[in-house]
Amino acid sequence: MESAIPAHLQCPRTRHRRVPDDYVPPYPSFVARHAPGVVRVVMAYFGVQHLGQAAAADAALKDLAASFACDGCPAHWDRSSYTDEAGYTNVICAAYWDDPGRFDAWFAVHGAKWTSEPRAGVGTFIEGVRPDVRRYETLFSAPDRREGIATLAAGMSDMVTEHAYWGGARDRIPASQIDAMESTGAPRLVRDGGRVMVVPHDNLCLIRSGQDWGDTQAEERAMYQRDVEPVLRAGMAFLRDEGLAIGCFANRYLSVETADGRSTEKSFGMSWWKSLAALERWAESHPTHVAIFGAAMKYLSTLGPAAKLKLYHEVTVARADEQFFEYLNCHDRSGMLRAA
Amino acid sequence: MESAIPAHLQCPRTRHRRVPDDYVPPYPSFVARHAPGVVRVVMAYFGVQHLGQAAAADAALKDLAASFACDGCPAHWDRSSYTDEAGYTNVICAAYWDDPGRFDAWFAVHGAKWTSEPRAGVGTFIEGVRPDVRRYETLFSAPDRREGIATLAAGMSDMVTEHAYWGGARDRIPASQIDAMESTGAPRLVRDGGRVMVVPHDNLCLIRSGQDWGDTQAEERAMYQRDVEPVLRAGMAFLRDEGLAIGCFANRYLSVETADGRSTEKSFGMSWWKSLAALERWAESHPTHVAIFGAAMKYLSTLGPAAKLKLYHEVTVARADEQFFEYLNCHDRSGMLRAA
Repeated sequence: MESAIPAHLQCPRTRHRRVPDDYVPPYPSFVARHAPGVVRVVMAYFGVQHLGQAAAADAALKDLAASFACDGCPAHWDRSSYTDEAGYTNVICAAYWDDPGRFDAWFAVHGAKWTSEPRAGVGTFIEGVRPDVRRYETLFSAPDRREGIATLAAGMSDMVTEHAYWGGARDRIPASQIDAMESTGAPRLVRDGGRVMVVPHDNLCLIRSGQDWGDTQAEERAMYQRDVEPVLRAGMAFLRDEGLAIGCFANRYLSVETADGRSTEKSFGMSWWKSLAALERWAESHPTHVAIFGAAMKYLSTLGPAAKLKLYHEVTVARADEQFFEYLNCHDRSGMLRAA
Repeated sequence: MESAIPAHLQCPRTRHRRVPDDYVPPYPSFVARHAPGVVRVVMAYFGVQHLGQAAAADAALKDLAASFACDGCPAHWDRSSYTDEAGYTNVICAAYWDDPGRFDAWFAVHGAKWTSEPRAGVGTFIEGVRPDVRRYETLFSAPDRREGIATLAAGMSDMVTEHAYWGGARDRIPASQIDAMESTGAPRLVRDGGRVMVVPHDNLCLIRSGQDWGDTQAEERAMYQRDVEPVLRAGMAFLRDEGLAIGCFANRYLSVETADGRSTEKSFGMSWWKSLAALERWAESHPTHVAIFGAAMKYLSTLGPAAKLKLYHEVTVARADEQFFEYLNCHDRSGMLRAA
């Protein structure tokens, strides 16, 4: 058992953890461990949206995939899709770097054009954060199936202490040792023709929270699809359609695809929040997430360690200057455009 | 909106609340406000247990009720009963004082004999705390139906901020401003013939958590009895039978009675915990309480402000020298006897 906060990021606390020192979690979970030399990462979501313009979208995605093979390319990326509340098909490639200089060099040559050069028939957007490693956390139900930023890690932790209680995500973020990470202000939009930038506020929160049912067998698979997935879907729909009132600026429930667009047995929710506190409140007390939590608890307590379903998430609390949002020819309910 | 911690008990913090300063709870709740001169209270549970010896128990309860009318008597008391895991009928009178000197005087003359003078056919016990007012909190869904220690209060608060999130109980306890209230050590028993005393440890936790469905009408009443009560009952049974492994020393699910033993439309759970942290962990993550919470949320969100069900609780974290436990001729699974 070890702390989710790696030794080199521990510091004298001005703020306490939510659990006593003798706390022992009831089941194991694991976190990604970067090499100590990694001080900042980039998590960038490149999206294309369209209404029945699949060919144009495919061409855009092909160009994007090609750019992901060029100098300075991301260390990892994945592709996913969903249909948004306006009925648009959205395909998103989430790309990860652990060297911001490398990202900047790549972005200047290959990335920036994604939202500066219009494409007929489709809208494009970039939503991203480049957080200090003290400003995000990861959590995995199994140490052998990495996703997202964890694919860039030097390794995985042993079992960690800070999980399986409300507030665990906050306690895993190194900055929480000394920072309440309260959000102030509100995002606002800056329009430049068809392009819209979001000027963000400090301590916006991003969560990517995923599931992989690829290893489940007949009975467990049926249980996931019957008892868990519909409840998860309902919660994701609530956040998408009604989240704004509780501080969720945008939510997407994405199906992971292969690089060439074939379906897989993975999905994830990805959402932008006014603050980590707003995310905490929804997670721990809103009926839609209490239902998700209850369904997952029942599933996992029925199956115990035999469960093959893999779960993970990553939560980032970013300073204003660690965020970037750009939308080109997107409809006005797209992502963070709804926030302002 | 005001803090659950009254102004005269606020102090410079070394520990933070769990919610940001701009937190607004989603529905109203209220706390008891003692007169500022009240610095310590007494909450004492006088119990009698028996197997088919109702006449002997009734005689004991009659004597107890008479003593509650003598000099120094409690400012409030109520009676409740349940059948324990060993099949014994237990009747408990919970009595409240807000002047420890008055309690001490009363106890010396009337109270002590409850567990020093054996009665044929029955066991008797006293379980109590005499906490500093900085070491407990109350919470009510409505300001007009006081129970427990709140019946001694000078009044009720306006709507308070610190509720409707996990950790709210801790944040309402004034001591939490500067004290983690971690528990250390373990209770041990001291036997003296048929009498057993429990030598407690610091920061034991007591919760009394009740419901009053007396005002509910046909449809709401049916909903409570069908959707909520069975789930509550199952959770109470879990704590009674399996709670020890998660830090719940003893749990009773009691039906409130009139002073002469007739049934009412009120009940409460009353439990002793190793620590507030152990109670927090059960409440926020154990399937049995997640189910209770989910059922209550669904009930209250269906009915909204029209709900007539009244809910309340009081939570105390007591220092070792603020606790007392004595059992006379009780079976060895009684209350805190199981803890050692």
